[in-house]
Amino acid sequence: MEQYAFTLELAVRDYECDMQGIVNNSVYQNYLEHARHEYLKSIGLNFTAFASKGINLVVVRAELDYKWPLKSGDRFFVAVNFTRESPLRFAFLQDIFRLPDKKLILKGKIIGTALNQKGRPEIPKELENIMPEE
Amino acid sequence: MEQYAFTLELAVRDYECDMQGIVNNSVYQNYLEHARHEYLKSIGLNFTAFASKGINLVVVRAELDYKWPLKSGDRFFVAVNFTRESPLRFAFLQDIFRLPDKKLILKGKIIGTALNQKGRPEIPKELENIMPEE
Amino acid sequence: MEQYAFTLELAVRDYECDMQGIVNNSVYQNYLEHARHEYLKSIGLNFTAFASKGINLVVVRAELDYKWPLKSGDRFFVAVNFTRESPLRFAFLQDIFRLPDKKLILKGKIIGTALNQKGRPEIPKELENIMPEE
Amino acid sequence: MEQYAFTLELAVRDYECDMQGIVNNSVYQNYLEHARHEYLKSIGLNFTAFASKGINLVVVRAELDYKWPLKSGDRFFVAVNFTRESPLRFAFLQDIFRLPDKKLILKGKIIGTALNQKGRPEIPKELENIMPEE
Repeated sequence: MEQYAFTLELAVRDYECDMQGIVNNSVYQNYLEHARHEYLKSIGLNFTAFASKGINLVVVRAELDYKWPLKSGDRFFVAVNFTRESPLRFAFLQDIFRLPDKKLILKGKIIGTALNQKGRPEIPKELENIMPEE
Repeated sequence: MEQYAFTLELAVRDYECDMQGIVNNSVYQNYLEHARHEYLKSIGLNFTAFASKGINLVVVRAELDYKWPLKSGDRFFVAVNFTRESPLRFAFLQDIFRLPDKKLILKGKIIGTALNQKGRPEIPKELENIMPEE
Repeated sequence: MEQYAFTLELAVRDYECDMQGIVNNSVYQNYLEHARHEYLKSIGLNFTAFASKGINLVVVRAELDYKWPLKSGDRFFVAVNFTRESPLRFAFLQDIFRLPDKKLILKGKIIGTALNQKGRPEIPKELENIMPEE
Repeated sequence: MEQYAFTLELAVRDYECDMQGIVNNSVYQNYLEHARHEYLKSIGLNFTAFASKGINLVVVRAELDYKWPLKSGDRFFVAVNFTRESPLRFAFLQDIFRLPDKKLILKGKIIGTALNQKGRPEIPKELENIMPEE
């Protein structure tokens, strides 16, 4: 397995499963968002605090490869890496693995930017600081 | 604007908006899924009926380009095209436009396959029939 | 059937159904909230506009009687009446009926209040005006 | 504080908050459902296993008193008691408390029954066994 900057362990909740008895596709984006926000918190950054200062972190593109479904009762973890995509865009590489067998469930790439109070893209210094050198 | 095989008009519901006051990223996948199922129904195919016969239509990859956020009170429509991606995969090209100004909100490509009772990929005849010639 | 001040027609979306193949319990509250906000809009009041002025309409109690489940493909309508519950509380009486047979699906009573900028209960004049005489 | 048969600690996820910056009303029912299913699991009963045997545990009434809102970043626990409501109905008494201050957030009473394969109310032996004497 790759190295990841952050991992978050979670478990499927029954209301997240649909009539096929598996976690609904859209729910994985909830898992990924929650893991991103927890990752940011773990390094001292806060999505809500940014929002209240008028800086909105927004997703501009999501690529999600669904490898295997999660179902009721499954435990899993979301693994997160953070990287620069371009001068004004950053990317979260987010993979989901089932526990305890570490079967790959989903590979995700979430590309984002930050919008300042004027709605213009501008990466806040705090995010710049955590991006790896290219 | 392109030609689409199907369009579905919807409106944002307030519970779909998050603390940024805009529709949460994961909710667009709900809109897209609902539009896909309505499209299939419109041509006589039923997601639930497939599921109850043990044929599961599953998403294997989603690509979502978020162009502009929807917010409380917005009306919009989801436009759908259906195409073959490979022998065992099909794709829904799904764009969301705000109403009445037709501003592009999201461009999506949802790649799927069908799993038969044995969990093996197999495109049901009914879906084969609606795929355009290559 | 009773007289209602407002009705809103909707249809079940497949992602709202859970592994039992029926609409998940919590989803009915989404339907009810959406119908309340649409009702308020229909009489010129806007939940979002209130929120942005610092007036928060909040639910203090919900009573929900689940009479019969909705399932995939069902159409239904939410019927709304608005009444005063006490000097500082109002109530929405909200019933859901399946279409076309008008089978009763859910009876709901949602009691709310409004909090002013200081977080104190205070019913805005606009809401006072629409409450029926006692 | 009362005695409870079971407690489950959780934390608010940002996607659960709405444009008022607080957890949306309907989300509490998700928390309560998840806690009920975890409680049942903790005593060896499994909601999904019941469903797959054709025994559906269903909610017939929910009473929810919203005392104080949860917001982004809040930790909390759901406390559960289980009791008989009538010969064919049981009730979960479920309270939510914020952590670490144990402020009461929500008081809930969720009344349910079980439907057998014929759709008739019938409490399975396994549930009978855990109900307190009256």
